Amino acid sequence: MDTQNLMEKIVALCKRRGFIYPGSEIYGGLAGTWDYGPAGSLMKKNLKDLWWKEMVQVRDDVVGMDSAIMMNPKAWEASGHLEAFTDPLVECKICHQRFRQDKQAEIEEHERTHKDQKVEWTEAKQFNLLVKAYLGVVEGKQSEIFLRGEITNGVQVNFKNILDSTRVRIPFGVAQIGKAFRNEITPGNFTFRSREFEQMELQFYIKSDPEEGKKWFDYWKEERMNWYTSLGIKKENLRFKDHEKLSHYAKAATDIEYQTPWGWDELMGIHNRGDWDLKRHGEFSGQDLKYRDPFTGEEYLPWDIETSAGVDRSFLFFLIDAYTEEDGRVLLKLNPKLAPFRAAVFPLLANKPELVEKARKIYLDLKQNFMIAWDERGNIGKRYAAQDEVGTPYCITVDFQTLEDDTVTIRDRDSAKQERVKISDITSAIR
Amino acid sequence: MDTQNLMEKIVALCKRRGFIYPGSEIYGGLAGTWDYGPAGSLMKKNLKDLWWKEMVQVRDDVVGMDSAIMMNPKAWEASGHLEAFTDPLVECKICHQRFRQDKQAEIEEHERTHKDQKVEWTEAKQFNLLVKAYLGVVEGKQSEIFLRGEITNGVQVNFKNILDSTRVRIPFGVAQIGKAFRNEITPGNFTFRSREFEQMELQFYIKSDPEEGKKWFDYWKEERMNWYTSLGIKKENLRFKDHEKLSHYAKAATDIEYQTPWGWDELMGIHNRGDWDLKRHGEFSGQDLKYRDPFTGEEYLPWDIETSAGVDRSFLFFLIDAYTEEDGRVLLKLNPKLAPFRAAVFPLLANKPELVEKARKIYLDLKQNFMIAWDERGNIGKRYAAQDEVGTPYCITVDFQTLEDDTVTIRDRDSAKQERVKISDITSAIR
Repeated sequence: MDTQNLMEKIVALCKRRGFIYPGSEIYGGLAGTWDYGPAGSLMKKNLKDLWWKEMVQVRDDVVGMDSAIMMNPKAWEASGHLEAFTDPLVECKICHQRFRQDKQAEIEEHERTHKDQKVEWTEAKQFNLLVKAYLGVVEGKQSEIFLRGEITNGVQVNFKNILDSTRVRIPFGVAQIGKAFRNEITPGNFTFRSREFEQMELQFYIKSDPEEGKKWFDYWKEERMNWYTSLGIKKENLRFKDHEKLSHYAKAATDIEYQTPWGWDELMGIHNRGDWDLKRHGEFSGQDLKYRDPFTGEEYLPWDIETSAGVDRSFLFFLIDAYTEEDGRVLLKLNPKLAPFRAAVFPLLANKPELVEKARKIYLDLKQNFMIAWDERGNIGKRYAAQDEVGTPYCITVDFQTLEDDTVTIRDRDSAKQERVKISDITSAIR
Repeated sequence: MDTQNLMEKIVALCKRRGFIYPGSEIYGGLAGTWDYGPAGSLMKKNLKDLWWKEMVQVRDDVVGMDSAIMMNPKAWEASGHLEAFTDPLVECKICHQRFRQDKQAEIEEHERTHKDQKVEWTEAKQFNLLVKAYLGVVEGKQSEIFLRGEITNGVQVNFKNILDSTRVRIPFGVAQIGKAFRNEITPGNFTFRSREFEQMELQFYIKSDPEEGKKWFDYWKEERMNWYTSLGIKKENLRFKDHEKLSHYAKAATDIEYQTPWGWDELMGIHNRGDWDLKRHGEFSGQDLKYRDPFTGEEYLPWDIETSAGVDRSFLFFLIDAYTEEDGRVLLKLNPKLAPFRAAVFPLLANKPELVEKARKIYLDLKQNFMIAWDERGNIGKRYAAQDEVGTPYCITVDFQTLEDDTVTIRDRDSAKQERVKISDITSAIR
C-alpha cells in the first residue's frame, strides 16, 4: 500500500466510523485541532485509563495529579520555555509567510508558488510556540498568560505540596494526563502535530546521582517500550532514538519512535531532566524545594526521570498499526482493551421480535460491564464489516437456534470464525 | 459550625490531604485556577468515570464525544456567545477596578477602601467572559480565537458528523466531559467560581415538539437529581430552582442548587435549548443540519435538552456534604465509589517484618482491582485519622493474629467499628 494512500484511508475511516473529525469542520475547520467522535472518545478513554491504571493504581511508587492548564507566567520563565521553547523560522520576503527552517521540502514547495519571482528569505528567527491568552477585567490591563506548552510544570511547581500531603518517599513518581497547546508552525500528518493535544506524563523523582539516573532512565525506557508492545504495537515498528542534541533541561534523552507511513517519527520521549525544574522553580519562586530523606536526614534536590507521551500520537499509531486489509476486508486489529467496543450484539433478523427481544436482553446485561455496540440494520455481513472497521473484537448473534438452546454465535474479528457459546458463558468468552 | 469557618476547614483539609492546591501557588497563585493533588485527582476521576459509565456505557441512547477546546471563532458568533456571554460591570472612577453590578456586597466593600473619598461608579457595561487567545505564526497577523466558555458547541457543530458515523436515532444524547474557561470577574468560594473548570454535559436531541420537550426536560431533571442523591448528597441539601430570566438560547431552564455554606447556589443546569444551536450553526455555516427520520422520512431540526454540570462544583459539594466532625474525629463520609481510595492496608507494627510482608502481599493483590492506600508510619490511631480525612471507607490491619489464622481487621470509616475477616473474603467485603 503506498503511504499517502494509507493515510488517506485511515483519515477517511476515522471520519466514517466516528473516531476523529476535523475540529470545527462545518466552519472550514481550525488548523491543528481535532474532535474525537463516539468511537474515538471511547478508545481515547480506554488508552488513558490503561495508562493511569498501570501507573497510578497498580504501581506502588506513583501518585496522580491533575493540574490547571493556565499557570502563572513565572512558571514558564523558570522552566525556560519563554526563552527556549522556540522553532527557527524563515520568512518569505515577497509574501511574508513563515516556515520552519528545518522543513526544506515545504520551503522549496513555497518557492515554486512564486514561479515568476526569485524568492529571498530572511535570516532565521526564533519563534516561541507558547499560545498567548489574556485574563483580567480591565481592558488594556489584562495580563498576558500562556496556555501550557507541556503538562510537566503543573507537577514540578507542586513538588512541595505533594511531599507535604502524601507519604511518598524517593524514588517516587507523579503521573498526569492533560491537554497542552502549541502554536505549531505547520500542523500536519493528521493528528500527529496538532495545536491542541493531550499528554500523559510521569515525573519520576530519584536521588541526585548519575548512577541512579542511568538506572532509572534505562528502567523507564524498557517499561514504556513494553507497554506499547504489550498493547499490540508490532515490535518492528518501534525503536529507540537517542537525541543528538539535548534540550536545555536534559542530561539524557531518548525518543521511542514509530515507523509511520511518513517515516520514523516521535511517539514519546524519556528524559533525564536532572534537577533542572526543581532548581529553577526554587530560584524563581524563592521557595526551598529540597527533599529531606526521612532516614538519613540528607537534603537535596531530586533528579527527575520523565516519560512524556502524546495521547493523540499513541492513539494514531495504535490505529495505524491495527489497520489491516485482508481477504477483501478492512479491519482494525486493536487490542480488545483499547477497542471502542468490547463486543457487538445482533439479532439475526430485525423483523423477528423474539430474536430482537432475546438479543436486547443480552445486550443490556453485557452493557453493565462492557462497552457494547448494537446493530440490527441491513444484513449480517454488512454489520460484521462495520464492526471490523471499528475494531470490535467480538460479534454476538442471536439466531433461531438461540431460541431453542440458549446459545449464540460469537464471531472473532481477526479470524472471522464463529463458534457457538452458551449465553451464560458470553462474559467469560469476551473477557 | 459557622460557615466561614467550615469553608476554611475544608480548604485546609483539601490542601493538607492532597485534594486541591491553589494553582501556581509557589508563584503567588493565578486567580481562579486550582490543581488537583494525589487524592483529588483520584476522586475527580472517580466522579467523571461514574458519570461517563452511567451516561455512555450503561444507557442505550447516548454516545460519547471529546471535542477540542479551541474552535473556529464563528462557532462562538453562531452560538450567541460573542454577543450575549456577558456580565454587567461597573467601574470605580477613582481606581478603575471593575465589579459585577449584581454583587452589591463586593461593591460596598470596595467603597470602604476609599474611605476618604466619595466613590462614583460608571454606568454598567457588558463585559464578555470568553478568554481570548492567539494563533498563527506571523506577528500582527495572528488570529484571535476564544477558549471555549462552555463545552456544548463542540457537540453541536458535530451533529451531522455524529449522525453520519453512528446508528443513533432520535431521541439520542451526546455526552462529553472537558475543560472550559471564563474570564470571571470575581473568582471565589474556593473552586466554585473558577476561570478554568471542567464540565460534564449531555446534549439530548429529541423531536421538535413542545410536549416531547416537556417530557424529556422533566425526565432529565429527575435523572440528574437522583444521580446526586444516589451518590450520597443529602436530599435536603438539593433543590430545583427554575430560572426567572431565560438565557437567549433557552425555552425552559432549571438549576439544581446545593445548600452551600454561603447559601443556595448552582450545582448544575437542565435546559431546553430548543433548536437554537442547530438552527444558528446551520445558518452561520451554510450547512443543512436537519435530522431525517429513517421511518417517516420527516426532516426537522431536533430540539436539545441539555444537562450541564460542573465537575469541580460537583466535587466540591460532594466534599462539603461528606465533611463531618463527630466524636472528636474529622471524616469525609464519601460514597465508596467516589472516595480516592477504596481501602487502606496497614501492618500493625512497621518494625515486624513478618507483619509488613503479609500486609504488603494483601496490599499488592488488592491494588490490581482497587485504588489502595498504604501506611506504616506512626501508631494505628494516627493512621485511622489520616484515612478518615481522605474519606477511605475501610482500613485493613494485619496484626499478630493474622499470622496465626489468616484473618485481618477491617475498620469501617463511618462507625469506626472493626470486624475480623478472612483474607480471602476481603475483596467481597470492600466491594
